[in-house]
Amino acid sequence: MEEAKGVVKHVALTKFKDDITPERIEELTKAYANLLNVIPSMKSFHWGKDVSAENLHQGFTHVFESTFESMEGVAEYVAHPAHVEYANLLIPCLEKFVIIDYKPTVVKF
Amino acid sequence: MEEAKGVVKHVALTKFKDDITPERIEELTKAYANLLNVIPSMKSFHWGKDVSAENLHQGFTHVFESTFESMEGVAEYVAHPAHVEYANLLIPCLEKFVIIDYKPTVVKF
Repeated sequence: MEEAKGVVKHVALTKFKDDITPERIEELTKAYANLLNVIPSMKSFHWGKDVSAENLHQGFTHVFESTFESMEGVAEYVAHPAHVEYANLLIPCLEKFVIIDYKPTVVKF
Repeated sequence: MEEAKGVVKHVALTKFKDDITPERIEELTKAYANLLNVIPSMKSFHWGKDVSAENLHQGFTHVFESTFESMEGVAEYVAHPAHVEYANLLIPCLEKFVIIDYKPTVVKF
């Protein structure tokens, strides 16, 4: 089960604080997406609200998913001043979050 | 910021118990992927180990990501006997997990 080379997904699960309005969440989502225009190593961005029905999401409300071509690309992003500035805006609005990177791999039978 | 229609991602973040061997994790990953061959509404499957460097992954060790064409497709999967049987194999091997569904959406500027 060899892992995919190159592509790295950077996934953030977030739970916004109860007093953060939908309008503010929309602004923060757009600002997150705008990092695509500023940080060259960030290749794509998708977001979505929790729509799960199993109730195994432990209160997380949103997923933010970015793609990079390498771990070096993720490191560039993490260290980039625009990301640092954005994180300082986002994190105070969150009750909790988890961020994980992985190389999406297909199982061949 | 209209959400994507149709495609639903079903993402599981897992932390395997310390005594679960890499061989057992590989077996369980293959068995997870094999649900693709059994449950028609499951359209794709990718997995990956945590490779993050930020240390914000809260101990989660693996990501398992499946794709469905609708929430009804996810519901079919969740209720499918092969999934129930698989979950009963997997869950006892986990120290913790979170499962969230979302419709990946692009922000248009």
